[in-house]
This record gives sequence, C-alpha cells and structure tokens, in this order.
Amino acid sequence: MAGIYRKGSRVAGLPPGALVHIGDRKSEKVEITVFGYNESGVEEREVDRVEECLELRDNHTATWINVDGLHCIDVLEKLGQHFGIHHLVLEDILDTDQRPKIEDYGDYLYMVLKMFYYDETGSEIITEQVSIVLGSNYVISFQERPGDVFDPVRERIRTGKVRIRKLGADYLAYALVDSIVDNYFVVLEKLYDRIESLEEELVVNPSGSTLKTIHSLKNEMLFLRRSVWPLREVVGRMERLDTVLIRETTAIYLRDLYDHIIQTIDTLETFREMLSGMIDIYLSSISNRMNEVMKVLTIIATIFIPLSFVAGVYGMNFDYMPELSWRWGYYAVLLLMAGAGIFMVMYFKRKKWI
Amino acid sequence: MAGIYRKGSRVAGLPPGALVHIGDRKSEKVEITVFGYNESGVEEREVDRVEECLELRDNHTATWINVDGLHCIDVLEKLGQHFGIHHLVLEDILDTDQRPKIEDYGDYLYMVLKMFYYDETGSEIITEQVSIVLGSNYVISFQERPGDVFDPVRERIRTGKVRIRKLGADYLAYALVDSIVDNYFVVLEKLYDRIESLEEELVVNPSGSTLKTIHSLKNEMLFLRRSVWPLREVVGRMERLDTVLIRETTAIYLRDLYDHIIQTIDTLETFREMLSGMIDIYLSSISNRMNEVMKVLTIIATIFIPLSFVAGVYGMNFDYMPELSWRWGYYAVLLLMAGAGIFMVMYFKRKKWI
Amino acid sequence: MAGIYRKGSRVAGLPPGALVHIGDRKSEKVEITVFGYNESGVEEREVDRVEECLELRDNHTATWINVDGLHCIDVLEKLGQHFGIHHLVLEDILDTDQRPKIEDYGDYLYMVLKMFYYDETGSEIITEQVSIVLGSNYVISFQERPGDVFDPVRERIRTGKVRIRKLGADYLAYALVDSIVDNYFVVLEKLYDRIESLEEELVVNPSGSTLKTIHSLKNEMLFLRRSVWPLREVVGRMERLDTVLIRETTAIYLRDLYDHIIQTIDTLETFREMLSGMIDIYLSSISNRMNEVMKVLTIIATIFIPLSFVAGVYGMNFDYMPELSWRWGYYAVLLLMAGAGIFMVMYFKRKKWI
Amino acid sequence: MAGIYRKGSRVAGLPPGALVHIGDRKSEKVEITVFGYNESGVEEREVDRVEECLELRDNHTATWINVDGLHCIDVLEKLGQHFGIHHLVLEDILDTDQRPKIEDYGDYLYMVLKMFYYDETGSEIITEQVSIVLGSNYVISFQERPGDVFDPVRERIRTGKVRIRKLGADYLAYALVDSIVDNYFVVLEKLYDRIESLEEELVVNPSGSTLKTIHSLKNEMLFLRRSVWPLREVVGRMERLDTVLIRETTAIYLRDLYDHIIQTIDTLETFREMLSGMIDIYLSSISNRMNEVMKVLTIIATIFIPLSFVAGVYGMNFDYMPELSWRWGYYAVLLLMAGAGIFMVMYFKRKKWI
Amino acid sequence: MAGIYRKGSRVAGLPPGALVHIGDRKSEKVEITVFGYNESGVEEREVDRVEECLELRDNHTATWINVDGLHCIDVLEKLGQHFGIHHLVLEDILDTDQRPKIEDYGDYLYMVLKMFYYDETGSEIITEQVSIVLGSNYVISFQERPGDVFDPVRERIRTGKVRIRKLGADYLAYALVDSIVDNYFVVLEKLYDRIESLEEELVVNPSGSTLKTIHSLKNEMLFLRRSVWPLREVVGRMERLDTVLIRETTAIYLRDLYDHIIQTIDTLETFREMLSGMIDIYLSSISNRMNEVMKVLTIIATIFIPLSFVAGVYGMNFDYMPELSWRWGYYAVLLLMAGAGIFMVMYFKRKKWI
Repeated sequence: MAGIYRKGSRVAGLPPGALVHIGDRKSEKVEITVFGYNESGVEEREVDRVEECLELRDNHTATWINVDGLHCIDVLEKLGQHFGIHHLVLEDILDTDQRPKIEDYGDYLYMVLKMFYYDETGSEIITEQVSIVLGSNYVISFQERPGDVFDPVRERIRTGKVRIRKLGADYLAYALVDSIVDNYFVVLEKLYDRIESLEEELVVNPSGSTLKTIHSLKNEMLFLRRSVWPLREVVGRMERLDTVLIRETTAIYLRDLYDHIIQTIDTLETFREMLSGMIDIYLSSISNRMNEVMKVLTIIATIFIPLSFVAGVYGMNFDYMPELSWRWGYYAVLLLMAGAGIFMVMYFKRKKWI
Repeated sequence: MAGIYRKGSRVAGLPPGALVHIGDRKSEKVEITVFGYNESGVEEREVDRVEECLELRDNHTATWINVDGLHCIDVLEKLGQHFGIHHLVLEDILDTDQRPKIEDYGDYLYMVLKMFYYDETGSEIITEQVSIVLGSNYVISFQERPGDVFDPVRERIRTGKVRIRKLGADYLAYALVDSIVDNYFVVLEKLYDRIESLEEELVVNPSGSTLKTIHSLKNEMLFLRRSVWPLREVVGRMERLDTVLIRETTAIYLRDLYDHIIQTIDTLETFREMLSGMIDIYLSSISNRMNEVMKVLTIIATIFIPLSFVAGVYGMNFDYMPELSWRWGYYAVLLLMAGAGIFMVMYFKRKKWI
Repeated sequence: MAGIYRKGSRVAGLPPGALVHIGDRKSEKVEITVFGYNESGVEEREVDRVEECLELRDNHTATWINVDGLHCIDVLEKLGQHFGIHHLVLEDILDTDQRPKIEDYGDYLYMVLKMFYYDETGSEIITEQVSIVLGSNYVISFQERPGDVFDPVRERIRTGKVRIRKLGADYLAYALVDSIVDNYFVVLEKLYDRIESLEEELVVNPSGSTLKTIHSLKNEMLFLRRSVWPLREVVGRMERLDTVLIRETTAIYLRDLYDHIIQTIDTLETFREMLSGMIDIYLSSISNRMNEVMKVLTIIATIFIPLSFVAGVYGMNFDYMPELSWRWGYYAVLLLMAGAGIFMVMYFKRKKWI
Repeated sequence: MAGIYRKGSRVAGLPPGALVHIGDRKSEKVEITVFGYNESGVEEREVDRVEECLELRDNHTATWINVDGLHCIDVLEKLGQHFGIHHLVLEDILDTDQRPKIEDYGDYLYMVLKMFYYDETGSEIITEQVSIVLGSNYVISFQERPGDVFDPVRERIRTGKVRIRKLGADYLAYALVDSIVDNYFVVLEKLYDRIESLEEELVVNPSGSTLKTIHSLKNEMLFLRRSVWPLREVVGRMERLDTVLIRETTAIYLRDLYDHIIQTIDTLETFREMLSGMIDIYLSSISNRMNEVMKVLTIIATIFIPLSFVAGVYGMNFDYMPELSWRWGYYAVLLLMAGAGIFMVMYFKRKKWI
Repeated sequence: MAGIYRKGSRVAGLPPGALVHIGDRKSEKVEITVFGYNESGVEEREVDRVEECLELRDNHTATWINVDGLHCIDVLEKLGQHFGIHHLVLEDILDTDQRPKIEDYGDYLYMVLKMFYYDETGSEIITEQVSIVLGSNYVISFQERPGDVFDPVRERIRTGKVRIRKLGADYLAYALVDSIVDNYFVVLEKLYDRIESLEEELVVNPSGSTLKTIHSLKNEMLFLRRSVWPLREVVGRMERLDTVLIRETTAIYLRDLYDHIIQTIDTLETFREMLSGMIDIYLSSISNRMNEVMKVLTIIATIFIPLSFVAGVYGMNFDYMPELSWRWGYYAVLLLMAGAGIFMVMYFKRKKWI
C-alpha cells in the first residue's frame, strides 16, 4: 500500500520550480542512452555528457534520449538548458508522485505516465513514474530506474524495415506509451489469477484472512485506477491537441492506444465489482456458518435438555413416588425418553435442519 | 466467467500492427461467402480465392463478403490489400478481445460488435466478436465461427422485393448490426427466465447455492453490459458521422436501432437492480432463519432449565428436607412444574414466538 | 412484475418494418373515433372505414383520430398510407414494448408514451402504450384498449369556449400527453398509500412478508421509472424541436408539462429512498428481535444453570458430606440459591437487560 | 412527512389553466399589503381592492404587492388581469405543490420558492410555497399565510438611506429570495442541534427509537433537498437570463445568493452523510451488544455445564462406586470443580472476554 | 466536528452587505504588514494606518498587504474605500463560513480559500479562511489570525534573485494560494498516519472505539472535501478567466497548481474508500468474533449436555435398575461417557471448529 500515499512527497514551503528529487533513490547510477535513427540507419550510444545528445539530434530525423535514474539533478538541468525545457517541467520530472498528465509547451509536449510491474517475489506491484518530453525531432524519456518495458521498442528500432524507423519522433513517443500500456495487461492478468484463486478459497475454506486479501486487492485496484484513469484523458487530449508535433499519421495509432486504455479501465472496473461481490459472498458465508453452529447447538440442547429434566424428576428423593417402585418403571421411562428423542430428530428433519 | 477476462489476450511487446490471431481457434476452416446483389438479381458464391470477391464487387451495387474464422491470416492480408484496409484494422479484427467501437477511415467504416448466444447445453453464454467493414458499395463481415445469426438477412437478400435489395451497402451493414442486436433480446429472455426461477427458489428454499447463482448471474450481466454499453455510442456515432458512406435514408433506421440498444441497456440495468434486491432478500432470509433457530432453542431451554433446577433441588440428599416426606409432595412438585411450564408457553405465545 | 419484461416482445430475425403486433391482444374490437373541430363547432364520429377520417381532416382546423386496439394491422396500414406515415413508425406503434420517445419525421412528429392505471382489484399496475402522431392539422392516437384517461380531453372539446377549440392540433397533442401525465399522480398517490401502510406494518409487526412487499414495491418503482425518465427527454425535446408543427403559444404549455414530469420523477426518487430506508429499519428490527430472544435465553440460563449446579452438588452420593447432615443445611442452601438468583436479576437490571 | 407528498395535490382531468386552489386553506383572510417607494419616500397600504395597487404602481419607481392567503381566487384573477399575468402562472401560484422554478414571460419573471420554518412546538418543519412575480417596476409575492420571514425586508424599506430604496424592483425581488434563503440557515441550525443530540444518544444509550429518529431526520432531509436543489438552478438561470428585468447591478447580488444556496446544499449533503454514518454506528452497536450478551451466556454455560456434569456423575446410584466411600472424596471433587472453574475464568481472561 | 457547521454563522434578516464579523474572534490584534517590491528592492513595513499602504502601492511594481485578524471592521472599511472594493466582498471577507470561490470584479479578483493546520495537541484540524484580493499591482490577503503558512513566501520576497521579485502581483497571488495548497499535503500526511495506525488497531484489537475513530476520521474527510473540491473550480476558472489581471506567464503556474489540487482530491477520495473498506473489515471481525464465541458455547454444551443426561439417568431412584447393581456398571458408564466425549471432539475437529 506504500504506493497509495508516499510520505514526504511534497516539500511544503519550497518555491515552485526548485529542483529537488522527491522519491526513493531507485537507481544508483544515472544512465543516458541515445538512439538516433532515420530510415536508412541507427546510431546507438551510451553517453556520459549531455552535450553528446545534441550532436545525435542534429544528425538524425528522430532521436530518443532515455534517462534512467533521477537523483542526479545536474544532468536534468543541463538537458533542460539544451532543449529549452521549462523549469516547472523539470520539477515535475523529479517529483515522482505526479498524476498522469499531458501539457503542451508549444515547442514540446510533456507527458507523465505510470509504469507497473510485479517485484521479484511477484507479490507486490511496483510503480514507477515515466516522464516523456516530445519535441519536433526528439523524445526524452525519464525513468526512475533501468527498466525492460521499453526493450521491445529498442529492438524494433534496431531492426530495419519496420514502421518505427520511417515515422518520426511522435510515433516513437506513441510506441513508448503503447509499450507501457501493453504492460498493464500483464499486471491485470496476474491480478485476475489472484482473484480467481481467491474465489476458489472463498468456496472451499473462507477465513478472516480471505477478507483481508480481498481488501488489499481492492486497495491495489484503487491505486492502479488512480494511475490509469487520468491516462485516458492524457491520450484523448494528445489526439485532439492542436499541435504540429503530432502528425496525422500518428493520430490513428493514438486512437488505437485510447481503445486499449479504455479496455484497461473497463477490466479494472469489472474486477472491482467482482471483488465487491466476493465480499458479499464472504459475509453471507460467515452468516451461514454461524447458522450451522447455532443449529448444532439447538439440536443437541433441544433433544437432551428435556430428557435430562425427566431423569432429574425421577432422581428426586421424595418418600412417596409410586413410579419408582413399579417393576417396569425404569424401562418405561427409558422408552419415553427414546420416543421423545426420536420425535425431536424427526421434527428437525422436517424443518430441514439435519 | 471465462469471457470476462481472456488470458493472454494481448501480446505485450509486439509492434502495433503485427498480425497475430488472439483468441481460441473457434472455427476450423475459414469460409468466405459472397453475396452480390442489386434490385434485379442476386449472385451468391462460396469463394476460395479472395480475388473472386473483387469481381462480384465490381458487378453489383452492393456486395457482402462474410468471413467465418479468423485463424487464416493470409486471407485477411489479401482482403486488406485488395480493399485498402489499414493494418491497424486488420490487427483489431484478429484481436477478438476488443470493445465495441466504430472508426471512420474515410473510404470505409470499421465496426466491432459482440454477438451472444447460449451454448448447446443452454447454461453458458458464448460471446463472439463480429467485425464489419463498410465501404461505398461493399460490406465485409468477420466472424469467429460460422453462425446463424445472419441467416435471416441472407434470406431477405435472396428473396426479391424487400427493401434490402433496393438500398445499398449501408443498409446492409445496418441489417447485420440489427440482427445481432435482435439476438440480444433472445439472450435477455433466457436470463429473465433464470432470474424468475431463482426468485421462486429464493421464496421456497433459499440455500447457499442460491446466492452463488445470483452472483454468477450478476457477473454474466457485468460481462454483457461491458459489450452492450459501448454499442450505444457506436450506433449513436454512426448516426452522426459526417460521411458519405451512410445515406440519409439509412439514418432513420439507425435511430430505430439506437432505440433497441437503449432498451437492451435499460433491461440489463433493471435485471441488475432486481438481482441486488434478491441478495437483500436472501440475506434477510438467513437472518430470519437464524432467528427461528434461536427461538426454538430459547423456548426449550427457558422452559426446561428452570424445571430441571426444581428437580435438582429435590434430588439433593440433605438429611432434613421436610418436603420429601410429605405425602403429596411429589404431586405438588409435579403440579408446580406443569404450572411453570404452562406459564412459559403462554408467555411465549404472547410474545408471538410460537 | 410482468410488465418489467415482456416475453417474446421482439421477434428476432424479422426484417425491420415488418408489421407484426407484439403484445397481448388487449382489446377485442378496433374502435376508431374521430373528432373534427374548430372554434365554431365540433363533429364527432365513430368510423368504420379509414377513409372517413380524411374527410373530417379536410373540413376542420384540427382533427383527432383515436384508435383503440392494435391487433387489426389492416387499419394501421391504411392510416399509414393515407397520412404518409413511415413504416418504421407503424412497426413501433405495434410493438408495445417501446421506450417513450419522440421522433421528428418532418411532416409529422411521432411520440410513444406509457399510460398507467390500477386494475380493477386495485393491487396491480397496468401499463399501456400510447402512440401519438402529430401532423400539421391532425393528431392520431393509438391505444391498446379503450381507456378513460382521455375522457376529460374529449369533454373539453365538446364544450365550447375553452382554449382547446381555439388552438390547433399541437395543443391537442399537448392536452393528450398532459392527461396521461396527470394520471401518473393518481398512481403515485396510491403508491404512497401503500408505502404509508407498509410503514405502519413495519412499526407494529414486521414479518418476512413485509420485506417481500417492500421489494415488490421497489420493483414496481423500477418499472415506472423506466417509463417516466425518458418522458422527460421526450417533452424537453418537443419544446426545443425546430419544427413548424409546434407553435410558440403551445411551447409555454410544454414547459408546464415538463415541470410536471420532473415532479413525478422527483416523487418516484423520494419513494425509492423511503423504501431503501424501510429496508434498513426492517433489517435492524430483525437484529433487535434476535437480540431480545438472546437476552431471554441468557437471563434464564445464567440464573438457573449455576443454581442447578449447586443442587447437583448436594445430590452427590458421597458417604462423607458433612453439610448433608446439618440441621439447617437444606435451608441454608435454599437461601444461598435465592441470594444468587436475586444477585443475577439485579445484575441484569443494572445492565438494562430486563 | 406530510410534506413529502401531499395527497390530492393534482386534480387529474382538469383543463390546464383552470384556477383551483390546491392545498390546505392555511390562512383565513386574504391580506394584501402594498409598498410603493422610491429613493425619497415610502407609501405603505393595506388594500382591499386590487385596483388600489395599480395607483401605487404608477406613482412609484418600485411597488411591492404582498398577498397572504391563496384561497380567494377572485383576488388572483383580478391581479392577473391588471398585471397581464398568464393563466398558467395563476394556476401554478394556486397549486402549492410546485417545484422551485423560474420562468421568463417576457414582461415579467415568475418564480416559485419554498419557505421553511419550524412549527410552534419546534418539532416539525412547516413548508410554505412563495410565488414571486417580478415586473419592470413591481414585485408581487404570494404566500400561503401571513409570515414573518419578509419582515426584515419591510423594515429596510421603511428605513431610508439603505440600498433597497435606491435600487429597483429587481433588487427587491432579490432581497425577498435572499431573506427566504437566509431562513434556511436557521432551519439547518436546528437540524444540526437535533443531529448532535442524536449522536450523543447514540453513544450513551442507543435504542430502536434512535434509529427511527435518524430515519425521520433522513426523510426530512430528502424533503428539504427536493426544495433546495432546484433553487440552485433557479438563481443560476436568473443570473444568466437575457432579460431587461434584471439590471447588471443586481446580477452581482444574485451571484452572492447563488453561493448561499450552494452552501445550503453542501450542508444538507454533509448532514446526510453524517446520518448515514450514524446508521452504521447504530447497527454495529447492536451487533456489539449481541456479542456481549452472547459472551455472558457462554461464560456462565461453559463454566457450570461441565461442573454440573461432574456433580451428576457422583449423583449416580451405582452400587459400586469406590470414590463415594473415600474419606476425602467429596472435598477432592469440590477442589476439582473449583480448579476447573478457575481454569475456565482464566481462559476467558486470556481471550479478553471478561 | 465543530468545523462542519458553525452555529450562528449567518445572521438571518440583516441586509446583504452589512458588515458584521461572523466567526470566533480568533486574533486579538489586527496586524497589517505591507511588502512593496520590484526587481531591484523590497520594502517591508508593519503599518497602523491603512493610508500608509497606498504610498507603498504607488511606489512599487507589486504590493502585498496582509491583514491578520478580521474583528476590526474599521480597517476593512478603509481598505475597501481606498482600493474600491465592493461592499459584498467586504461582507464575504468577514463571513468566515464561505465556500472557496473566485469572483471577477473587473478591477480586481476576489478569492476565498481555506487553510488547514493541526492544533498544538496535533489531534484536531483547525480551519481558517483566507481571502485574497488581487488588483493590477497589489494583493491584499486577509487571515483570521497571524499564521506561518505564508512565511516561505515572505522569505522568498526578501531574498533577491528569485522569480517572485521579477513577476507581478498575479504571481504573488499564485504563490500565496500555492503555499496554502502545499500545506494540505502536510495535513494529508498526518491523516494517513492516523489511518495507518487505525488499520493496525483493526488487525490487532478492534473495539467499539475503533469504529468511532473511523467515523470521526470520515467526518473530518467530509469537511476537508467540502473545502478542497470547490478549490478545483476556483483555480480552473482563474486559469480560464478573460482578465488582464493574470498574465500568460502566470497561467502556466496555475496549471501546475491545478494539478496539485486534483492530487489532493484524489488522495482524499482514496482515503475515503480505504476508510469504507475498514468499516467492512470491522463489521466482519465482529461477526467473526461472535462466531468464535458461539463455537465455544456450542462445543462445551454439545459435549456435556448429553453426558449430563446419561449421569442423570443413572441418578434416577427406580427400585429396579439392573445396571446399578452390576459390578462394572459404573466403569462401563464412565467409559461410555469418555467415548461419547471423544467422538464429539473428533466431530468438531473434522468440522474445523477446534
């Protein structure tokens, strides 16, 4: 649940635009990789100085600068200077507790997205903020730590003949966002597995921990929803933006992306309703079990309490109790008791308690 | 519930536009049937090569190509080439986990719909994705397996003199969508039957399985809703689209179709509220039964525990207990017990517990 | 509940526009009554042939043709021919499972409404679909069976000097809708009576049947709401429609009508919330009663079980039990028991259980 | 709850515009008071004939005619005639079961509002409909009975030098509505007092009547909400209306009024949520108490039933029971029992039941 | 909860625009501090007479007048006169029970905001209304008592070289609002701490007081929400306002501010849902505990009641009971009892009750 609210995420009292990295130091080394490509060739470099990026940018139709790790503010400031990025954007890149959004700064677009993946143990969802700056012929992406979600995009750039090499920076930005959204489906699938196994547990052996698992799943869902819902607007606005940065040929892909996000939201909502239904079943199964316990108690008590009473009566020490001296008194009483017991059992059978 | 979320439905990491059939291989053979018709005549053919379709298209005012089965990517690619269909559309046709939608590609419209029918045993709802591409004088429809929902449309085309032969491809597309929506009512009817029989079960003999059936019906409803809700927008947009592909004479039919979809949604919502009400009744019937069990226990215990106490008192072995030697002591105590018992019974009668 | 979903209401597979009467055959004979009137006079006729209507229409400023009974498709087809009514409209008139709606066909407006009234026993709400076609100087209304809701309108037409005779067909259409909406208030009043008597029952003697009645009332409300909500849009659109068929003098009346519909919806929503509140009270009253039962059991058991134990102790047969041979042992034990009993009772008094 | 739905409030079957007073005859005498004023002076008169009003209107910049009591239809008709008021407005003034609304009739605006105050005993909310007709230089207000909510406005008119005397009829209308809305806060305050005392009751001694009070408060809230919500739209529209009747100088006051209404709605919604929370607390406090009762029963039964069993064993009459003849058998058994009892008590202590 | 509804907050019956301070007298002395600054220098003064402010305003590009304490109406009236502030604004400044809002008066904008902080004990949220008047080259802020939320802004003004000194009054107004919103995050953090500790309490030892704490947290949330929700609209409108008072360079900061407010609302909603989930867990944990109690009772009663019955049978005093004289009768019965007991325990084990 740590992801729902990150403590100390905002530094009250600082002037807006002060560059402070908010968030855990997720990556130790800041790695900058640059891809410069056009239809005919690709140049891929791991750079140390920000200035190297500029050279690549000027020589290719599209350049992708990927920054892994945000704790080195120096790098960010230089990038900001060279690419003319507003200091508010730089501040937002560092504050990893942003809501997904898109902002049009004229010369470039700034996007914030959330990436999800399960940790190594596969039991907790890790979230990472990805910032994307889309200029006329470059894309800069900022990640909190080196991640493999973008690897398929890298692979496609390296291979020739695919669409990505022919189309410009806007298509690249789309491809990055698309790979993030595609990854949502992987997370959803795992969630579905957990929901399914919970459902089985609910039928076979519901316990207090079942409910707690349902609730923690619900909280995870809350948390995913908070990151996916605004994305809908982000891509919707991206499509409608009146900007030269996004060409018409890319708009069609954005529409497709939008559909995928809607599908994610739909699935999340469906999961939520399924979980709500499971809580209902859980609560009614508790009631049912209580009912069963009560029935056992009632059956036993209702059969034996009256019988004990009869035994008690003939255990009284009155001097004059004629039945006691009857020859078959004892057997008569035993018979009476058996009869009463059988009657009770039949009564419960008719009431369908047994 | 398999339909709510299909595992592996999206292949994360693939470039957008890569043609991969996602979904179960529902039909073994890909069947292509072509109808070419105008007011004066119909030509109906089962074709093997995609090229044959083109000949028919050029000779008739309206051509309907129906493809049953999606696993043969070859066929799709050829159709895409011949009819100039965008590769994103082809990708969407193959991904059978789409949300209903409509997209305007200028030369043609692309629609995704969901078809429902019960399986042979009549206990599970089967869903199938239908894609429709509407061009100026042709309609291509893609189904996952050969289905009979379109049979009435086929019949109408074969018969002369009906409207469908006079009107163009847009009316044909409408007729196809209409036949799918008409089929929703059949599914709703069966759902209603099941709700009604559940309601009876709830009154006569509610059990834990009743609740589970209610919940699985609710989940089915969730799943239908997810497919029908977006349809509303699809047809609404179809009506408003600024395109030459849909003539004004057809617009009036679309309005009618829109009404039917709203009716479906209305009915689904009503069913949902009815099911919610049933859960309330179920839970309160559990409470009521617990109450009843408790009452039986209380009545028996409250009557016999005090009587047993009295018997216990006279079972004590004190040397000096004057009552024990009284001549009528035993009968007096029996009378006292009977009196107490009758008093209790009357008390419970007054409290309306018996 | 039959009204919520009518089985077989839609005939899947029929071409749109096929005239089939869907619904129960509610009226045996199809009755056509025609009112032709202008400021100076009224002509009222019961006609057999549709052609007669036309004569009246041509001679008066406003003509009202009322058709009771829909099973005679012949009549409908002739009317459609003579008045130039679209076959989709005719189809909708026959399908009595429509949602209220308004449609502008240029030369005429087509409206669908729902009429409610209680059956003779006063326990069930009957619904009937009313279709109104408003032309430039005529109104055609279709009812499922002869009804008395329109009688006041008829009376007003017969009487001179009232507004209705001076104003045209649009005012007549308004008057018909108004009389239907006015009737809603009658149904609401009866519903309110039932809610009030339920509320009393809930206080005096809540039982399982109370809950079932609340739920069936809720379902009825669902059903009314489904018919009244869309009406809001119908009248709202009627007011805003850019048509010559509705004059400005009538618009002011439509606004008034709109207010009445909003009032109906408001009242329905309030009823719903009241019923929801009643379910809460019912459930908590069950809990309260269970509580009471439990208390009785607990009081009796808690008092007598320890006392029985004491009696049991002195009923043991040990050879050496000095208390048994004490002269006042028996009385001492009785006193002890009485003391314990009184203490318990006081304890429960302090706990406010008694 | 009488206010939620007033029986017989609408007379089905009457022609629209028929003047019938619907509602209780709240005031015995119809009182008409007229204020004519301009910056320099005020003229205040209680009039008998409607014609007198006209004289005042013609001599002053602003005239306020206040009518207390609606049962005299004569007065209304004359006013309608003299001021050119549409018969639908007159009908609405008489029907005191209206929803708040504003209507623009060109020459004048017609507003319906609801006034609330507690009855003399302070336990029930009384509602009264106030109709306001705002013309170019006059305001006519209709109340069901003479009320004191407008007294402060009267006082301000009488006193010179305040804004009201300088500004026109539109400001007067605003002042009247403002004084009604101001009074809402008084009602809200009393409601808050009741909620607070309920909250205390809930903590100290929740009973079945607590729940019933919560529910009746909820119903009152429903009823207030129904009257206040539409007011928001009324004032919002008043501000935006394209009419010469409301000057720009007044628009600024309307915005202020709008804020007050939003505040009222906000407070009502907050109250509602607080009441919902209280129901939750109530229900859980019932559960808690049941739990407590169950615990007492369980503790007593669990301690004494096993002990009674032991006593029962040694109460058996077998000829050969060696323990019975032991010298210390009785004491050993007593010790055993005490030990078992103490063990049980400690077990319950550890479970935190005691 | 005092903050949710403040008694006597509105003085019904007063003319609108009458200056009366509504609210607690939170600050004893009215303190006025003035900051005049431009890019080159700052002048900071604590003034006694309102006139002094004017001098500073005329000499600097931006002037910030901060008024701490509202009870001195004199000061307010003078400020109103000198800066041409509408009397309705002055009234609103004094009424500290306003909803956040923004109003455009042409020459200046008027904003109302809510400031939150915890009291010294850290257990209660204190709310304070802040009014900001933004003119072309001045900002006047009104607080209820001297607060430290604006201190960072003051510090920034005093230090040269930061943006705030270069930009005008509109940026200053933004900075003030931003510092208030930044402080919300501090309050949210503390709330989160309380929610987290509650969650732990819920797992370890849920009691009736846990529920009450959850509910009081929910009520606090209600109260925060009421103040934060409208802020969204305030800043949104500020951004869109068609006014010369806000320059384009500032608009970009407003967008950033807007994002922060959305984030606050998001977090509040998430907290609300988490609290709702906690109530569910609490209620089910009560049910679970009841279940456990019931099980203990049932196990004990079910084991010992039948055994006691057997003991009772052999405690009967019949003259002829052959078992009593058997040599091993007693041991046989003891064995029988032990067997029955063990059987019962195993039965419960299989049912997983033990």
